Amino acid sequence: MRLKRNTTGLLLFIGMIFFQNFSFAQSKTANEDAFFIRKIYDSALTEGRAYNWLSHLTTQIGGRLAGSPHAAAAVEYTRQMLDTLQLDRVYLQDCTVPHWVRGEAEQVRIVNSSKIGTQELNALALGNSIGTGNFGITAQVVEVQTLDEVEELGRAGVGGKIVFYNRPLDRTQINTFAAYGGAVDQRVWGASKAAEYGAVGVLVRSMAIGLDDIPHTGTLVYRDNIPQIPGIAISTNDAELLSRVLKEEPVSVFMRSTCQKFSDKPSHSVIGEIRGSEFPDEIILVGGHLDSWDVGQGAHDDGAGCVQAMDVLQIMKRIGYQPKRTIRCVLFQNEENGLMGGRTYAKISNEKNEYHLAAIESDRGGFTPRGFSCEGDTSTFTKYYRQVNDWLPLLEPYGLTFTTGGSGADIGPLKSQKGLLIGLVPDSQRYFDYHHTAADVIEAVNQRELELGAAAMTSLVYLIDQYGL
Amino acid sequence: MRLKRNTTGLLLFIGMIFFQNFSFAQSKTANEDAFFIRKIYDSALTEGRAYNWLSHLTTQIGGRLAGSPHAAAAVEYTRQMLDTLQLDRVYLQDCTVPHWVRGEAEQVRIVNSSKIGTQELNALALGNSIGTGNFGITAQVVEVQTLDEVEELGRAGVGGKIVFYNRPLDRTQINTFAAYGGAVDQRVWGASKAAEYGAVGVLVRSMAIGLDDIPHTGTLVYRDNIPQIPGIAISTNDAELLSRVLKEEPVSVFMRSTCQKFSDKPSHSVIGEIRGSEFPDEIILVGGHLDSWDVGQGAHDDGAGCVQAMDVLQIMKRIGYQPKRTIRCVLFQNEENGLMGGRTYAKISNEKNEYHLAAIESDRGGFTPRGFSCEGDTSTFTKYYRQVNDWLPLLEPYGLTFTTGGSGADIGPLKSQKGLLIGLVPDSQRYFDYHHTAADVIEAVNQRELELGAAAMTSLVYLIDQYGL
Repeated sequence: MRLKRNTTGLLLFIGMIFFQNFSFAQSKTANEDAFFIRKIYDSALTEGRAYNWLSHLTTQIGGRLAGSPHAAAAVEYTRQMLDTLQLDRVYLQDCTVPHWVRGEAEQVRIVNSSKIGTQELNALALGNSIGTGNFGITAQVVEVQTLDEVEELGRAGVGGKIVFYNRPLDRTQINTFAAYGGAVDQRVWGASKAAEYGAVGVLVRSMAIGLDDIPHTGTLVYRDNIPQIPGIAISTNDAELLSRVLKEEPVSVFMRSTCQKFSDKPSHSVIGEIRGSEFPDEIILVGGHLDSWDVGQGAHDDGAGCVQAMDVLQIMKRIGYQPKRTIRCVLFQNEENGLMGGRTYAKISNEKNEYHLAAIESDRGGFTPRGFSCEGDTSTFTKYYRQVNDWLPLLEPYGLTFTTGGSGADIGPLKSQKGLLIGLVPDSQRYFDYHHTAADVIEAVNQRELELGAAAMTSLVYLIDQYGL
Repeated sequence: MRLKRNTTGLLLFIGMIFFQNFSFAQSKTANEDAFFIRKIYDSALTEGRAYNWLSHLTTQIGGRLAGSPHAAAAVEYTRQMLDTLQLDRVYLQDCTVPHWVRGEAEQVRIVNSSKIGTQELNALALGNSIGTGNFGITAQVVEVQTLDEVEELGRAGVGGKIVFYNRPLDRTQINTFAAYGGAVDQRVWGASKAAEYGAVGVLVRSMAIGLDDIPHTGTLVYRDNIPQIPGIAISTNDAELLSRVLKEEPVSVFMRSTCQKFSDKPSHSVIGEIRGSEFPDEIILVGGHLDSWDVGQGAHDDGAGCVQAMDVLQIMKRIGYQPKRTIRCVLFQNEENGLMGGRTYAKISNEKNEYHLAAIESDRGGFTPRGFSCEGDTSTFTKYYRQVNDWLPLLEPYGLTFTTGGSGADIGPLKSQKGLLIGLVPDSQRYFDYHHTAADVIEAVNQRELELGAAAMTSLVYLIDQYGL
């Protein structure tokens, strides 16, 4: 587009937003808050360190599954970076994490199609899956769309076979997390459901919103007292291919993975905090999860959330803000396949009788922020949610709104402390192009979008710190 | 992030949005409209053709500056694609366009620094610029931040020198178009201002929001009766480098470009329409501009807008919607360096006594849509703007709002017809990473984000068609 007409209009537009803001909230305090939030955004967009930290975490360390040497490197790196911020306290919190290793590159191959012969498929073993054994598994494939369909087919239908879960994410959902939520039962519970009826393995269509060649890993959960069978994800393009072939003729697939679960490992969540000057016992937590899947660089999931949470403290120090309440940044360990960081943190916090007035997690990618999703204990939620909505005129100029809904997996265990649990909500359109894949790399993250998320979190922390809930 | 907590919350969130919508607008008609708009989105996200068209336009045709053979190919391709839609009419509208050719790869080089010796800079001639002549220009460089500074320096300060405009885009602007608007005077008017005081050439810091090696071209305008001197953009990283060197010592730069302006060429805008069944003389226009700069593929600017406008008609045909009013898709020619398509279109339209009730242009990139920016003649604007805002409950579930402000350059000349002029407003954060560069390629466009824009435009066209303004 060209210069003239549009820019005039946009300046008008921006002017109007500010005007609306000031007419909503004309008190001296509100004006001071507006200017302070402007200062936070200025700092985040010009002196933010989030993107540089993320560059190191992704390109120099990379994928960092809990229990791996890379996860240990990420712990040490982020601890050292928090150490540079001259906080009141930086420390590691011990936790014990599962240790799953992918092993050799997975193989999945259509072996006997009269239509297409032998065809390799793009595949990634699901996290926590057992391996197939060294010689792999070859079996006939039966395609299903739902777990219920496995029950209907029963042992006669799936016994001795590989079950292929092929229900796509619903592209028509505007929020891609809703599409993900509507399909991911296949990945999480599909293996045990198929094993219940004698299947020998499962293939799962990747949890991708579009059609491409990139397989998506992610957790599989084995149910107790049901045989464990291996689960492997294939790309959406390959799922379409396999489905087309199966419409023509029965085919067998060879699948091989050498994943292994080792004994649990000691690991750590990383914590840094600025102690509150007036109400140090009221904690406002900001966090993300430090672990990621082993493939890719864990850039959006959840390197982005970690560096944004770290930048909240960095920005506060940079602009010389001394909080009244304790602001604590927690980089949780092992969200992806165990949540041991989050569980351990809440357990220890409860034992110490700590009180988290609020906790904000960023774990939906480093995209342009749209607002915050809030939940909490019924005894306090209505009051707290009304309070944050009172600040809307201060946050709307930055495109932020509040909704009710889930917050974040790692902070979920803090619910019993009856504070407000908050998830940063960015634009969701691109997330499931990268989620749990080799494509989740720094190049997929836009610096400004990342910085705006850090600024949004810092602004909300500032308001909660100033006024409580 | 993991499955459980978050997805539940997000489903709740989506549920609430729909609930709010229905409580706002409970009439039978509003419900029917809500379902029809849902149908439009379903179609755009599952049967949309925008992304496929854009793939061809970008990878098979590429950059398509007005007057170039590539522009002619784009005219023919989009005409043929519109022909497949079984519209009531598809035709080309003649217009005469300037014909500027970049020529050989530009060279810009620091030649005599005692600090860094000789250093090549990443450069692109500005559109409409004259060339330097075959042997280039070598002259001392003087850095300025503003056009006013050139006046202050005067002939003694800049005479015989190369003026280097180095004021960055203001990163702290949340809307990047505001940042662009605050800096682009250097690119548009900098050459004539410098020439007024005897400068021999200008270098302009690229209109990029961040620091990188990518030079951004764009129009330069020569003022009448002032000598024409060549203008070249350098990347933001190179602008920083040159500025650092200039702080240490005076340096000279060699700049060479072989751009040329040829005689005007005949060209075309491309038009397709569905004739209205009840009010055929009330036109609702959807459009983008078909030309782009010669570098890159013109994917966001403005291939995206063209294929979205085409998809408005495609979606209407696909879901069997017969409009009451005439829906016309116009792919304007020569927006980037002349606006001859838009000017010619308005002129002919006025001669025919046509009436455009509304015109919607998409020319801010194919990113997640946030709403619409509206302007118009004072005699009708308040009424029309109130009317579209009445539909907000139907559009908010899709993240859309209305603001006042600029619409689009190509539809601007229609203002005298006193209809409502509307610009699609997508998220602006990434636009100035790609704008007018070699990086504006199909890989920078996300399919869903593009499709959501087409759906947003179609939905608004539907409402205007149903109810008028």
